[in-house]
Order: sequence, then structure tokens, then C-alpha cells
Amino acid sequence: MPGEVHVAILGGTGYGAGEMLRLLTQHAGVRVAGVTTTSQVGERVDRVHPHLRGFYDLRLEAKVPWARLLDAPQAVLVSGLPSGASGAAIESALTVAAEYGAAERLRVIDLSGDLRLRDLRRHREHYPETPSLEALRGQAVYGLAELNREAIAGARVVANPGCLATAAILAAAPLIRLGASGVLAVDTKTGSSGSGRQLKETTHHPTRHADFRAYKALAHQHEPEIAQALSDEAGDRVQLSFVAQSMDAARGIFATVHATLPAETDAARLRAEYERYYADRPFVRVVSGSPALQDVVGSNFCDVGVAARGRQVIVMAALDNLVKGMAGAAIQNMNLMCGLDERTGLWAPSLRPV
Amino acid sequence: MPGEVHVAILGGTGYGAGEMLRLLTQHAGVRVAGVTTTSQVGERVDRVHPHLRGFYDLRLEAKVPWARLLDAPQAVLVSGLPSGASGAAIESALTVAAEYGAAERLRVIDLSGDLRLRDLRRHREHYPETPSLEALRGQAVYGLAELNREAIAGARVVANPGCLATAAILAAAPLIRLGASGVLAVDTKTGSSGSGRQLKETTHHPTRHADFRAYKALAHQHEPEIAQALSDEAGDRVQLSFVAQSMDAARGIFATVHATLPAETDAARLRAEYERYYADRPFVRVVSGSPALQDVVGSNFCDVGVAARGRQVIVMAALDNLVKGMAGAAIQNMNLMCGLDERTGLWAPSLRPV
Amino acid sequence: MPGEVHVAILGGTGYGAGEMLRLLTQHAGVRVAGVTTTSQVGERVDRVHPHLRGFYDLRLEAKVPWARLLDAPQAVLVSGLPSGASGAAIESALTVAAEYGAAERLRVIDLSGDLRLRDLRRHREHYPETPSLEALRGQAVYGLAELNREAIAGARVVANPGCLATAAILAAAPLIRLGASGVLAVDTKTGSSGSGRQLKETTHHPTRHADFRAYKALAHQHEPEIAQALSDEAGDRVQLSFVAQSMDAARGIFATVHATLPAETDAARLRAEYERYYADRPFVRVVSGSPALQDVVGSNFCDVGVAARGRQVIVMAALDNLVKGMAGAAIQNMNLMCGLDERTGLWAPSLRPV
Amino acid sequence: MPGEVHVAILGGTGYGAGEMLRLLTQHAGVRVAGVTTTSQVGERVDRVHPHLRGFYDLRLEAKVPWARLLDAPQAVLVSGLPSGASGAAIESALTVAAEYGAAERLRVIDLSGDLRLRDLRRHREHYPETPSLEALRGQAVYGLAELNREAIAGARVVANPGCLATAAILAAAPLIRLGASGVLAVDTKTGSSGSGRQLKETTHHPTRHADFRAYKALAHQHEPEIAQALSDEAGDRVQLSFVAQSMDAARGIFATVHATLPAETDAARLRAEYERYYADRPFVRVVSGSPALQDVVGSNFCDVGVAARGRQVIVMAALDNLVKGMAGAAIQNMNLMCGLDERTGLWAPSLRPV
Repeated sequence: MPGEVHVAILGGTGYGAGEMLRLLTQHAGVRVAGVTTTSQVGERVDRVHPHLRGFYDLRLEAKVPWARLLDAPQAVLVSGLPSGASGAAIESALTVAAEYGAAERLRVIDLSGDLRLRDLRRHREHYPETPSLEALRGQAVYGLAELNREAIAGARVVANPGCLATAAILAAAPLIRLGASGVLAVDTKTGSSGSGRQLKETTHHPTRHADFRAYKALAHQHEPEIAQALSDEAGDRVQLSFVAQSMDAARGIFATVHATLPAETDAARLRAEYERYYADRPFVRVVSGSPALQDVVGSNFCDVGVAARGRQVIVMAALDNLVKGMAGAAIQNMNLMCGLDERTGLWAPSLRPV
Repeated sequence: MPGEVHVAILGGTGYGAGEMLRLLTQHAGVRVAGVTTTSQVGERVDRVHPHLRGFYDLRLEAKVPWARLLDAPQAVLVSGLPSGASGAAIESALTVAAEYGAAERLRVIDLSGDLRLRDLRRHREHYPETPSLEALRGQAVYGLAELNREAIAGARVVANPGCLATAAILAAAPLIRLGASGVLAVDTKTGSSGSGRQLKETTHHPTRHADFRAYKALAHQHEPEIAQALSDEAGDRVQLSFVAQSMDAARGIFATVHATLPAETDAARLRAEYERYYADRPFVRVVSGSPALQDVVGSNFCDVGVAARGRQVIVMAALDNLVKGMAGAAIQNMNLMCGLDERTGLWAPSLRPV
Repeated sequence: MPGEVHVAILGGTGYGAGEMLRLLTQHAGVRVAGVTTTSQVGERVDRVHPHLRGFYDLRLEAKVPWARLLDAPQAVLVSGLPSGASGAAIESALTVAAEYGAAERLRVIDLSGDLRLRDLRRHREHYPETPSLEALRGQAVYGLAELNREAIAGARVVANPGCLATAAILAAAPLIRLGASGVLAVDTKTGSSGSGRQLKETTHHPTRHADFRAYKALAHQHEPEIAQALSDEAGDRVQLSFVAQSMDAARGIFATVHATLPAETDAARLRAEYERYYADRPFVRVVSGSPALQDVVGSNFCDVGVAARGRQVIVMAALDNLVKGMAGAAIQNMNLMCGLDERTGLWAPSLRPV
Repeated sequence: MPGEVHVAILGGTGYGAGEMLRLLTQHAGVRVAGVTTTSQVGERVDRVHPHLRGFYDLRLEAKVPWARLLDAPQAVLVSGLPSGASGAAIESALTVAAEYGAAERLRVIDLSGDLRLRDLRRHREHYPETPSLEALRGQAVYGLAELNREAIAGARVVANPGCLATAAILAAAPLIRLGASGVLAVDTKTGSSGSGRQLKETTHHPTRHADFRAYKALAHQHEPEIAQALSDEAGDRVQLSFVAQSMDAARGIFATVHATLPAETDAARLRAEYERYYADRPFVRVVSGSPALQDVVGSNFCDVGVAARGRQVIVMAALDNLVKGMAGAAIQNMNLMCGLDERTGLWAPSLRPV
């Protein structure tokens, strides 16, 4: 074990921070050095996240406790701030870290969308509230461990992927390798926690209960993120027809990808291709038939299933948006960045039934 | 008003029958002459469907009460029997009706899938338990009122559409007219009542709650039904990539269609095309943005919304599987077959919030 | 039929107004003359309540359209304003009506809690934001039709009951007549729509989904309302142990009353007593075993079931908080106040399954 | 650490076994030696419980693998068989263990209700399908660790408590100590997984979704179990008015107890009494206000909250029926029986939001 890791979390009242804190209770190698907030300074962490009562004797702070954070062989700053605020806060934090002489030692993981898109034009279109942060953007590694494990291990700054994007990319990447062409239809469904802790009309319970609806069809900010990752994989530009849809569930992403392959296949052969592709990726399980939210909720797994008929294929991926789609992926990245086994603190099954 | 209609329902314990009976409490022109069952003969209708207490003073019977059924200017037999049993039962019933000299007067509506597919090869592939019933199949009209209103009005036997098929066809038909080409990705989601009243692992509450999963990807029996209806509309063979998916909801279908048009468009223009296409169809409402289950559950509406970007379009349709997807559509067909306004007994909004 | 009724609704954006409007689409004798708002003047009613598209060609107005409202043999003003604002708005409206010479003709129904409690001390304790309005309070009749039918028929102003209170009173009133003594434990459960359309932490979907919790135990404003109604029934002061609890459902109230009777009984005899008590009350159905939300949601029914063991009894009541617990009860009251059959526009079964 | 523990589970296809297996993935000191079944012999454990894929390389067996089970310093047999079958199976197993000379070394935990009631008359009334098993019953210790920790530590056979009973007893026990008198109203609510994996009408998804209903009011088998435990605590017979109710949730128990104390109190003082009572009980957390399912689901915590007004009190308890209400409690008991810290393998927070 390369030594203890200290972690500080920015934006401690949100679901991302809550889930980091939940998962870190099971991670032996990590100590939470501090949690910041702009709104509830001084409040106990287990009042803000009442399920954590008995696990943390910490209070939210206005600022990163640098001395405590850096008092360890390795230090990781995780930003749970919203897009628009996160990137700039990270830039400032890196400056402060440099003043502490810790520029090299501090690793940063950004849960927001601020640093995900390399193409500035796309970035400005989808994140108009975020500054360009070109230098920071240039060094940020896209944190999808299944595709970028080595780059993440060496990164100083990781842009943690979007939850819908993670499911879609893990479902589609092997198809791209197999030569899928034309427009990929990527039909995604999400639970309400993906919209965050802030009250919104679309997450008002009477509105969301027993409902299902689409939003941002052909206009969602995860579409260019998916296209970027798949285009890297293809070595060519990939076209998508992307839609996000709201389910009556608190957790969970289900992505369904409809595609056409260059040659005929069947489910068994396609499944074998997926198993090869994800052979050494412990958190992707290629399943028979359809994956199911119940088999992944609460866990860091992304389950993937395939169907085929002639050249047509449908691939389905399921994951927990707060774990593999956010905090679990961040811990997986943190493990890689700190030289730990990527499974550390994350190797647990889902809650089923849930 | 052309005079009172008597209705008998076969298979009275299922959700289809229950929903027919619920809706008919609001239909002034109809009297329920009898409800049959093979399993609970003699039981009160409002014990089997306890929400109907106070509305029906009827008991389930082993046989159609022909004398009562035919003692009216118009008689309609609705079969709520499962696929595999329904078609044959209808054939027998028509024979009996002929013995009563009522061959001309009796109209029949089949809620099952037994008579929907014209192509016998497709039929046998997807409904291997159903006899071919070629003569009956030959005279059955596909009962989607928005596309086949005139044929239904003159039909003796109507094959009521599948619930997923109804949503998919209503979403896609205008696209076909606009020349959409290539494979249409049809991604559908359904509530649990669509699986019927019989206990199944997939509708076991602990399994279904907070879950989402796909089933019969590229192998669902509604796919050829949709292809048949859209191919009629296109005058050419339409290709689909179809998947059904299970939501944690009891009622509701949401269909999302991804397609490419021959020319660029935008949402406003596409919406106008849809409004033209459904101009005289009271139960299809073309909405701004996405439709939502909450706006249709409990009602006979199918709400449709569109999105566009260049040549790519996404169309979404929402309906209640037990109403517009089954019993409501059957009453709409019954109204047309009996010369009534198609809205009779059905003109009510959804329950929102639900 | 005594002639057409014109209705105006104050506070048109809330769930109470939405449900009034939904139910009134099925009421042949009523015309909605106007709907007011303080926040969305000029907006179409079917934009605010999208499930009503196709049913109303009205816009929200800042003020009651008096000329239109009074242009009918009978006029009813229904206030869907929140507690604290409703009572005063009604007082003003009555003054204006008097200026129009319509003081006698106008009937008023208050959906809020402002006028429910006769005891001013209790009122001030639970509704500190509401003025005393002693004159108005003095003439307001408590609008629970099953207990107060005659008084409601003659009332000018009706205080519509609270949703939890309705379920609890209908469950407990016969027990009081049977001499139940001691503290009645009244354990109630509610869906989220009872908390209204305004966004709240307790109705944030990720917080409410799959959750269950209590609130205002021994401190809820419906407790004195229930005690008042049951004490009237008893001719003596009734003591309660009352708690409200939040379910993961949008609609529905379930009240469970635990009590001790002066003599031993059994379920059959107790059920017979309930049937006698509610003999002429069409919207209370005494059921065998437990009532169930699914048998009442969307309808104006309150189903009641009983259990007994020696002197101990448990009585359970289920209703839809937006119908029998609010808008349906208001229409039932309106029917009585206007000389109509109380069932008019309300005689429909629940949606089951839902 | 007293050495490795080997565990075998009887009845491996049910939810109890699934949850044991899930929780044991996080327990470093335990090895699962075998899992039996009567219905799916030879099937992989992770096919029957698909969320466990990657965690167990085991197949279901027809018989307990005694050699493997006993090849460790300590051996525990957990029965997940249904009531009616479990007690007899345990009796047989103990005989076999004696033949292996392991009578002393083997500990047994029964998840069923077969051995919970000491009073044979009560037992026969509520478990007519179970033999009396008087000798076995005589040595079985009631496995509620918060009340019986020492007895459990020394027990050879533990009767694991019922899920509703656990919540009710933990809510009410301190009240009994404080002298609560008269009939305690115990109003409990449960998720669907408590009814088990077998398909039932009451856990059919369309029936259960958005529903709430009571069952076995004043006739539930957990009532005498609660009365037995509380009477032990009181040193006198305690009377209950008990009802179980079905929620639309898969996991979770919420128990609400209404009682009258001999003297006036307030919430702060009562809460302090509860904190004293549960001072050294790590899995009971006394919370401010109401507990909530979301704070306990997935965890072994039972959260308890109190309200008071004069002599009247309401106490609320929340827990996960499959963890603290079944498998977690069993592991807690196993830890005590094996000389481990009772928290081993169980010290993790709930999933919130869930």
C-alpha cells in the first residue's frame, strides 16, 4: 500500500459529496480531511447527510483545510461543485497548492462537466456559464477508467465523466471498434438523483411519481461528451441521436444503443466480443440478456447486455448514477492516481431487491 | 344516437376486461350484458374488480348470454382472452351468432394479438400457440382508429392493436409520410399492467420496484405489427430496431423513435407536420417538448412530441396501455362500428398528479 | 335540475384547482366562469395543468370575473388559496358579491384550513398566519357531507375538510357512537400531492422515493379538526394520539384508528354497524378486510374496513386526498348547496391498477 | 480474532439467503462453505442472485456440505427455510452435527418464525404448520441483540426475530421500562420483500404499486412475538393493538407506537431516556424528529425517534427488513456467538437517496 490518502471534498452538501462520503466509509486507505460548503458552514456532516450518522465527526468548512489535507503521502481534492463553479474553484485550488509546495503531490478530480469537453466550441455551447480554462482543460484527463486507465494513473487532474455518458460510452465503445456506422441511437433513462439535491419542478415528487418523460432530446450536454470519447475510440467522428429520459427511480441509468454493424452477427458472438473488450475491467460485467438496475444500484458495476439480428444490434448498459456514474468512478480514479488497486473500497454488490 | 349497444366481454377477470368495465361506467349508450370467465364462474364482478363496487350488479358467467346480448339494436363482443385462446373463441362465437341469425348484427373486437398480423409466416413465428384462422384473419381490420377510421366503421371484426405498437405507430407514422428512411430505432418503455394479471417473476414487486430492464430486444411480437402498419403507410417495407423495456409504473407506455429524414427540418416545422397529420384525430395531442405519462394516464389520449436537428429527428409518444393501448381503443372502435362519435364515454382528462 | 351553476376558482395554479377543473369536465351542470391567480396572470389554464389540454379554453385572471360568475341561476366561488390567504380573500369576495346584490345567491367553498376550527384558541395555535375572521368563521359550515349533509345544503359558506381529517373522521365517527373511550390512536399516511405544488425538501423526489417518515407527530393541525368533529358526534371531548406520515405515492390517504369499545364485538358485527351508519352515504363503502388505495385513487370514494378482537378494534379508511380529500368533496358540497344529487359529476370508479 | 468462521445457508434461493450472501461479501472473517436448496440444485449462486456475480463461485447443493462446514474453528448454520420447514430441518441438522462430533461447535440461527414463541398455545395458533419441537424451542434464544446480547453470545440456537417485531420491540421496549400502561397501539408498515421471493397476489407489481393496505389486523403472528419480548421487559403481560400494512417499497419497516406514560414528559426528556436505554447498542440510533427509511435501507441500523405531549407519546422506528430485520441481525448474532465485535461486516451506512 503506497501510504494513506487524504481527501478533501468541495461542495459538501450535494449528492456527489454525500455519496463520496458514504463510499469512503468502506475505504480503509483514505481519511477525509475536510468538506467545504458555501451555504452551511459549521453544520455537522451527519446533519446534512443523516444516513452518515455514526461515521463522521466532521463539520462543513468554508475553506479547504490545506494543512490537514496535505499532511499525508498523497492528497486528493474532489470537487462536487456544480458545473460553472467547479473548474474555476479547481484552478484556484491548484494555485494555493503550489503555494504550499504541493503542486506535484495534489491530485484533483472534478465531478462537474466543466473540464470534460476538449473542443472549446462544443464546451461553450453546452456550458456557457463556465470559463474556458484552456490550460487546465488541456491537462485534464477524461476519467473513464475502462477506456483511459493508464492516462488516469498518471494524471494530475481528472474530469470525471457524466453519468449518462458513462453508460452510453461503455455500451457503445465495443460497437465502434466493431465498425458500427451511421447514426447511433442512444436512448438513455435516468433516476432523479442525477438532477441533484436542489429542488426543481422536474424532481417534485408528485410530478415525477409514476411519470416518464424525455428532456433535451438532441440537445443534451452529454451528447458531445459521448461523441468525443467514441470518436477517440473510432479514430473518426461518430454521430449520435441522443435523448435523456426521466424515470420514477432515485438512482440508476439505463442506456440503450441501437446500431448497425458492417457484418451479420448473433448475440453469443457479440457477447464474446464484449467480454474480450472488457476482459480486464472488473467493474464491467457482460451479462446474458438484459442488465437490470437492481443488479447495479448501490454498486460500482456497469452491467452490459447485447442483442443481435443480422447486422442490427441493441446494446444495453445499467449503472448507478451516483456510484459508477459519479462518486464510485471518482474513487476508482483516485485509486488509480494513488497507485492502489482500482477496486479498493468499491468491491461490493448491489442491493437487490431494492 | 343509433340506439343502445349491448356488450359482452370474454375473459372477465383480466385487466383488459376490468378496464373495459371501468370505462363503460361513463358510457351512457352501452349496457354490459354479460362477462365470461373460465376460472371464477359465479363470482361477483365487483369482487374480481373491487374498485367497481357500486357500479355493477353482475356475476361472471361460463358462457356468453346470447339472448341478453342480442336484445338490442347493436351488439358487440369484446374478447379479453389471452393470445392463443382468443381467436378460436371468436370464431366459435361468430358461428353461434349466425345460429341466432345475428351474424350481421354482431361486431367483434379482439384485444389479443391473435388476429393482428396479416402475414401468416410472421404470425406463426410470434404467436406459435395460435391457429392460423385464415378466414377470420382475412376479414379482421386493424383497429387503430387514427389510421383506419373508415375501415373500422365498416368492420365486423376488429383486431385491437398492441399497446406498445399503438404508441410506436402513432409516433412514427407521420415520419414515414415525410420519407424517413433506413432503420427506425423504436425504443419503448412499459408499465407492469401490460404483462397482465397473472403472477410472473418480472412483475413480482420486489423485482420490479426501482428497476428498469429490457426484454425481447429485436424479438418482440409487436415489432412485425408496427412494421406492418408503417409499411402500409409507406407503401414499402419499413425496417425497425425495436426494444421493449420494463418501468416501475403500473400504467403507461412511452415510445421514443429515432429517425433520419430526407431533408433538414426543425422542431416547429416538424410539429406543424404532426398537427396536420393528426388534425382530425381528437385523441392524439401534439405537444410542445416531451409528452409525459402523467398527462395521459387514465385517459384515452396519446400525446406526441418532436425534436429535430438537421435531418435527425426524435419523436416521443405517451399513452396509457390499458386505455388508449387497450380498452379505450376498443371503445373508440366500438363507437365507430356503432355509428357513435368516437369520443363517446372517453372524453376525460388524465389523473395528474398520479 | 335547478339550473346551470357557474363556478369561479381562486388560486388556479395549485393542485386543488387543477383537480376541481379535472372533475368538472365530467359535470354536465357546471360552467367554469373563471380561474384566478396571483402569479401567472394571462397564462392558459391548460399550460398550467397540461393534462387538461383540449378541455378548457380559458386563461388565468387576476380577479374574479364577477359578471360572468353571476350570470347564472347559481354561482359558487371555490377558494384554492393557501391557508393564511384564503379566509381573507373570501371575506373580500363576499363584500364584492354584496355590492353586486348577489350576497344571497353566491355560495362559497374554502379548500383551505382557515375556517375549519370553531375554537379560536385552537385556530390561532395551528393557523397563526390566519386572521380570526370571527363573523365568517361563525357562519362557516364544516363540509363533511357524510356527517353534515343538511347543514351544508343550507350553508352560504362551507369550510371544506382537511384530507387526513376526512379519512380519520369517517373511520372513527361510528366508533364514537359505539362508545369508544380513552385515547384514540389515529395513524395516518399520505401521498405527496397533499403537500401541494410548491417545491419542498420533503417532496423532493430523491428524498421521497422509497421513503417513509412521520411528521408533526402529536402536533398536526388536522388533529384539532378531527377532535372537533368527533366531539360533536360524541357530545363530549374526544382525545386523540395523531400522527401524519409520508408515503412514496402521489395520491392517497390511509388512516388507521386503534380503539377500545365498551363491549366485545367481532368484525362482522362491527361491519354491520358501519353499514348502518353509512347506509345512505353513497361515497362511503364499507368493505370486507382492508380498504386499499388502488380502489379509491381518482375517485370520490372513501372505503372503510374494520377488524375486531374482544373489545379492541382497528378501523381503516382509504381515500384520494385530491378527490374525496379536497376537490371531490368540494363538488359534493357544491351539489348539495345547489340542490343537485350529491353524486353529480362524481360517480366514477377509481383507476385500478394505478 | 477467534479464528475463521464457516457458514452454511439452508434455503439458498430466498431473499434471506441472498441478503446473507450479499452482506457476507463484506465480512472478512467468514467463508461461505455451502448453500442448499430443494428446488434448484446445481444452479450457480450468482444466477439465482444475479447481483452477486463476481463474488461467489458456488453452486446450490441438495445437502449441507458438512465436511467443508466443519473444517474451521467455528461453524454456523443459518436457515433461510420458510416457517413450517425450518425448525424440523434444524433439528435434523443438529442430529447430523452430533454424528460428526460437532454438536458443541456448531451454532444455528433460524431466520424463520418456527422457534420464536415460547408459549406453545400461541405458537400453534400462529404457526399451525410447524411441529412443536419442544426441546429445540426450549434451548432457542430470542435473537434480538439489543435486548439479549449476553444470552445470544452463549446460545447454540438462536431464533432470529421477525422484521416487524424487531422494529416494534426496539421502539417500545424503553416505554415499557418507563411504565407505559394500557393497550399499546403498534402500527407497522412494510416493504414487499418481507413477503419473500415467492409470487403472490399481494406482491404482484400492478397490485402493489402506489397502493397501501392493511393485512392481518389484530391477527398477525408477530403480535405475540412482540408481546412476549415486551412482557419479558415489563415483567408483566403487555397488551397490543397490532396491524401490519403494505407499502409501495421493496425494503423497509416503519413502526409507529402510540402509548400513554404514567407521568408527563416532553420529547427532549424522552429522547434522553432512549439514548440511555440504547447507550451501548451501536445499531440503534436515537434521532431527532422522525426516523426515515432512506437513512436505514441497506444498513443494519434501526433509527428511533420520539414525540411527546403530556403523558401521550408516539415512538417511531425504521429499519431495513432484510438487514436489521433479518440477515444483518443474523450476522450480528453470529458475530456475538463467535466472539467477534457485533459490528463486524455490518458497519456501513444506508444508501441515501435510494
